[in-house]
Amino acid sequence: MKAIVRRDRRLLTDDMAEPTPGPGQVLVKTLVCGICGSDLHALHHLEHMVETNLRAGAADTLDPSADIVFGHEFSAEILDHGPETARTLKPGTRVVSVPMALGPGGVELVGYSNRYPGGFAERMLLQEAMLLPVPNGLSAEAAAMVEPMAVGEHAVGKANPGKNSVCLVVGCGPVGLAVIAALKARGLGPVIASDFSEARRHMAEVMGADIVVDPSASSPHAHWEAFDVPATLASFGAARLMGRSMRDAIVFECVGVPGLIQSLVEAVPPTARIVVVGVCMEDDRITPVLAINKQLSLDFVFAYSPEEFAATLQRVADGTIDVAPLISGVVGRSGVPAAFEALGKAGGPVKLMVNPALD
Amino acid sequence: MKAIVRRDRRLLTDDMAEPTPGPGQVLVKTLVCGICGSDLHALHHLEHMVETNLRAGAADTLDPSADIVFGHEFSAEILDHGPETARTLKPGTRVVSVPMALGPGGVELVGYSNRYPGGFAERMLLQEAMLLPVPNGLSAEAAAMVEPMAVGEHAVGKANPGKNSVCLVVGCGPVGLAVIAALKARGLGPVIASDFSEARRHMAEVMGADIVVDPSASSPHAHWEAFDVPATLASFGAARLMGRSMRDAIVFECVGVPGLIQSLVEAVPPTARIVVVGVCMEDDRITPVLAINKQLSLDFVFAYSPEEFAATLQRVADGTIDVAPLISGVVGRSGVPAAFEALGKAGGPVKLMVNPALD
Repeated sequence: MKAIVRRDRRLLTDDMAEPTPGPGQVLVKTLVCGICGSDLHALHHLEHMVETNLRAGAADTLDPSADIVFGHEFSAEILDHGPETARTLKPGTRVVSVPMALGPGGVELVGYSNRYPGGFAERMLLQEAMLLPVPNGLSAEAAAMVEPMAVGEHAVGKANPGKNSVCLVVGCGPVGLAVIAALKARGLGPVIASDFSEARRHMAEVMGADIVVDPSASSPHAHWEAFDVPATLASFGAARLMGRSMRDAIVFECVGVPGLIQSLVEAVPPTARIVVVGVCMEDDRITPVLAINKQLSLDFVFAYSPEEFAATLQRVADGTIDVAPLISGVVGRSGVPAAFEALGKAGGPVKLMVNPALD
Repeated sequence: MKAIVRRDRRLLTDDMAEPTPGPGQVLVKTLVCGICGSDLHALHHLEHMVETNLRAGAADTLDPSADIVFGHEFSAEILDHGPETARTLKPGTRVVSVPMALGPGGVELVGYSNRYPGGFAERMLLQEAMLLPVPNGLSAEAAAMVEPMAVGEHAVGKANPGKNSVCLVVGCGPVGLAVIAALKARGLGPVIASDFSEARRHMAEVMGADIVVDPSASSPHAHWEAFDVPATLASFGAARLMGRSMRDAIVFECVGVPGLIQSLVEAVPPTARIVVVGVCMEDDRITPVLAINKQLSLDFVFAYSPEEFAATLQRVADGTIDVAPLISGVVGRSGVPAAFEALGKAGGPVKLMVNPALD
């Protein structure tokens, strides 16, 4: 089969051996697969990613010097079942899946594994137990958006905002837009969204943000007081002393560059909860005593649970979350290197997808 | 009246004008007042503390170049009521109080205010609305321990551990010991406590820690797996994939030196909640991607609510928390500089108190 392979820090099309489903596995045909910011990073820095994963206590299952086929945001069609499978979903069924599979050394991530080629290959092996059928009528492209949108569902689930919460989303790339979508799917607001790019601010509005802010023109933190959030320690102390109940602030950090967490520690209101969804790959500096004085919480989140993934599929399928505006285009194999470049530019396309069956 | 005054970064006894209670205020006689680690820091670094508070958005109510009388861990006796007071508590009543009072510029902290001398003075002005009567039979010294113990109650309340939680307390100074006491008062365990000082480890056992660890001999993180906490991302992933329910880790950082938060980010199990109670006054460095991969939470906490303060008084008074072992001694005014020095040494006395009526 054809696949886009990462080899020597470059992407190239190559022929690969046809995968054969083992026990508990299903062979699927990739319909379409989104390109993730993590793929952009991994193209050049996979070694660093693997090293970080090992430092965090992950199983040692990925050799970054060997071939990798990226792609964990996919929709697919069942072709064949391996042994020891229930076969509840018949061949031809469209599916999505949490991109996790079992390897001999532990859990492997489909698309970041030497053993499990991801959605940039024509065919994949998935774990039958992880498959979810795509409801009728949902396009292959929309189904492939379930994975990145589930990241937003998880971040929002972790923060668990209520009717009394005022939410700020910093950075309106795919992650920030997924957070906005998950907040609005729960009927929450106001949602303030901030991005330097006009195109991204427009997209934030399309996804339902109530207020969009260009941080080069004005601070997104200027809005707290209007929504009855105590914006300073002084106003917080006064409100508490007078027994006045006020709204709480939740901030989603969806950028992931050094200095951003600290800029939020400086700027957010007292008792704010900062949910760190953007992945900053470098070391960073914070001032703990500021966070202590303001009693801030930092929740570092990653991925989603299988339940959150399934709930997101449901919301995309029933139209609660409209992912169509986020899909910037689909490329064939030969278009992948240029797609990576375009996605690497600030304010570029939101989500480009690969159809690995097309040249 | 006599008071120990901070002037030119030194502590000296001086005569001060007798305070007169204003509207809503009560004049009290200080019985005894604990010396806090914050006082040790503020003696030399009050300017930095004030600057940090302002950066965090506090009201500008404290001039660090003017005289300050420290002391916010006090018990007292009511002497007189000012105008516009309810006078429910009669003169002679023993009281404790959240050390907060109203000033013209906002909330002021008794003991960190030019306007409200703290418990290192013979008499203080307190806010009548903040007073809690000390139940009969509780000594003045034990009542003065309510304030530092409430810090533990607040930290534990924020983490909200359950029967399924395994708790690690890093650092067994007054803050760490207060956390241990609050955990055991809720009947929670196991509680693992870690400190380099043998004397402090002994004190942790006295307060109810189930396991004490000398981190120079072995890692406190070696115990997670024995208590069924998934200690690595690999074991966490495997447990989740198999649907196996395991216990969760909560770590209380009660030291407050640079590098400690990052050492915990590196060492704690996946999904651990790190409650930062120790006040690190310097900038600090973290690796966000490790915290993201492990999905850690950092809760920065400070002080307590009035409700937590009252609950702690109840627990100290009814014997659920025995504070007697923590009280290392009481000094008169002339003993205060030496007491500050003794408390500044690692593994020294846990809590020294001042009786400002004694020479």
